Amino acid sequence: MEIRTIKSPSKGTIDMLMRRMGANVNKDSICVDAVGLVQGKMLDMIYAADIAEKAVGVTVEDIKGSCPQNMIMIAIFGDTSSVESAIQEIKRNVKKEKDIC
Amino acid sequence: MEIRTIKSPSKGTIDMLMRRMGANVNKDSICVDAVGLVQGKMLDMIYAADIAEKAVGVTVEDIKGSCPQNMIMIAIFGDTSSVESAIQEIKRNVKKEKDIC
Amino acid sequence: MEIRTIKSPSKGTIDMLMRRMGANVNKDSICVDAVGLVQGKMLDMIYAADIAEKAVGVTVEDIKGSCPQNMIMIAIFGDTSSVESAIQEIKRNVKKEKDIC
Amino acid sequence: MEIRTIKSPSKGTIDMLMRRMGANVNKDSICVDAVGLVQGKMLDMIYAADIAEKAVGVTVEDIKGSCPQNMIMIAIFGDTSSVESAIQEIKRNVKKEKDIC
Amino acid sequence: MEIRTIKSPSKGTIDMLMRRMGANVNKDSICVDAVGLVQGKMLDMIYAADIAEKAVGVTVEDIKGSCPQNMIMIAIFGDTSSVESAIQEIKRNVKKEKDIC
Amino acid sequence: MEIRTIKSPSKGTIDMLMRRMGANVNKDSICVDAVGLVQGKMLDMIYAADIAEKAVGVTVEDIKGSCPQNMIMIAIFGDTSSVESAIQEIKRNVKKEKDIC
Repeated sequence: MEIRTIKSPSKGTIDMLMRRMGANVNKDSICVDAVGLVQGKMLDMIYAADIAEKAVGVTVEDIKGSCPQNMIMIAIFGDTSSVESAIQEIKRNVKKEKDIC
Repeated sequence: MEIRTIKSPSKGTIDMLMRRMGANVNKDSICVDAVGLVQGKMLDMIYAADIAEKAVGVTVEDIKGSCPQNMIMIAIFGDTSSVESAIQEIKRNVKKEKDIC
Repeated sequence: MEIRTIKSPSKGTIDMLMRRMGANVNKDSICVDAVGLVQGKMLDMIYAADIAEKAVGVTVEDIKGSCPQNMIMIAIFGDTSSVESAIQEIKRNVKKEKDIC
Repeated sequence: MEIRTIKSPSKGTIDMLMRRMGANVNKDSICVDAVGLVQGKMLDMIYAADIAEKAVGVTVEDIKGSCPQNMIMIAIFGDTSSVESAIQEIKRNVKKEKDIC
Repeated sequence: MEIRTIKSPSKGTIDMLMRRMGANVNKDSICVDAVGLVQGKMLDMIYAADIAEKAVGVTVEDIKGSCPQNMIMIAIFGDTSSVESAIQEIKRNVKKEKDIC
Repeated sequence: MEIRTIKSPSKGTIDMLMRRMGANVNKDSICVDAVGLVQGKMLDMIYAADIAEKAVGVTVEDIKGSCPQNMIMIAIFGDTSSVESAIQEIKRNVKKEKDIC
């Protein structure tokens, strides 16, 4: 799982992400002060999305097109401190509770 | 094969999974107290799905990746103890009866 | 090439396979007492399918969507002993007559 | 590059290949006594197809994978000795004239 | 992440890139004296695009691969010195602020 | 990057390539005495295409469907000596001016 946080993303960056989000997302209501990007296996992305969803003040969306086909990317939008908290929470939890067999 | 269990998944997590399920699934009738996620090779996913289907009290669905055709993950929905039992059952059986040649 | 045999597959497992078979397959006429699954390179799958087709009492279908794109999966349906015979026949022959250059 | 030759392929095997060939192929006119299968990188497949096309008595077709766009395998149809000659010709030439940089 | 800069790209090269850009790009208004190409993981491409967008005098576009959904490369168009500055800026920043867990 | 040159390609080989070229290519005007094939990462293929485009007497086209999805292939058509010159030029330049970070 790889993680990056972009503070004050440019309009073009936001557009690049928005174009890859589902059609039914209310894009105008999302706070885009910062965006955390998390890329990894689908299994881990669903798990990370769940942790981020339970954090406060962020919007979590999955981004189409990362394409090594068992990989997806999620974007976590919000104000900078909320995004950073959500990312911290993911990092704290992600190694837990996973079985490989 | 990698396995994770999410207890009390958030609404957004459920939606992310539901969007990747087939159109003919009756999504309202599924108990989503917990969800077990199993990701791996198609051959192993069909096998794991079969074991989970034979367990009690769970609903098994295949989750599409970004390419519409590829199945890489199954989700096992149900109450927490049923999901955990199904996951245990998969882990007990999955190494059995596989030939590599 | 990886091989698994599922005896008495659940209805959900059968459906998962049927949904990934061609539209022109007469799905009602297939005996689903057991199913052998063989996953591997397309070249080897065509070869394995040919061996299985020449075995007695089984129906061979290719399954869409295994997606590491040069891999496919075939399913061999039939009664348990016919499926096991076909699988044995594949395992006996598959190492033969292949050139790698 | 991997190569297999199937003598007297079953009807189901022929169908599996035909379904993955282009729509504009005159499938009835093809001799299917034997089929040579060659799988590899696109660059090498184009090269192998060219060698086979220049051989006598065979029909060369490219076989699509599960994604409609990708060619990963060619099939060489004909009578057994023609197919074997074409395959020999590919094996004699394929290591020649390739630069890797 | 791999980076190349093409000075005075040929018309055919520009066309090859333009065909892989989104339909809503105003292609006539882009300065094509030079083009910087950056290829890598989606997570890193979004990050690199953001850095380039904040540089002066360049236009940043994402370039689609053969599958319509996957973004694997960005192109940075502009006059030669602007493109080179943007590329330098990406190289200075790209190792920063990435967590792998 | 892998390179092959086919001299006097067969009609079937030309067709196989033409079917994978863009619809807006004037296929009748292309000299097909020889064809150079170059397969590699998209970034390198754009670069190689640009070098070939600047060579004399060749037509450069990108070929769809090589499909390990960050790989593409270009075909360089022309008379034999022009194709060989263009290929030499690619080989002389391709290691230059690439940053990996």
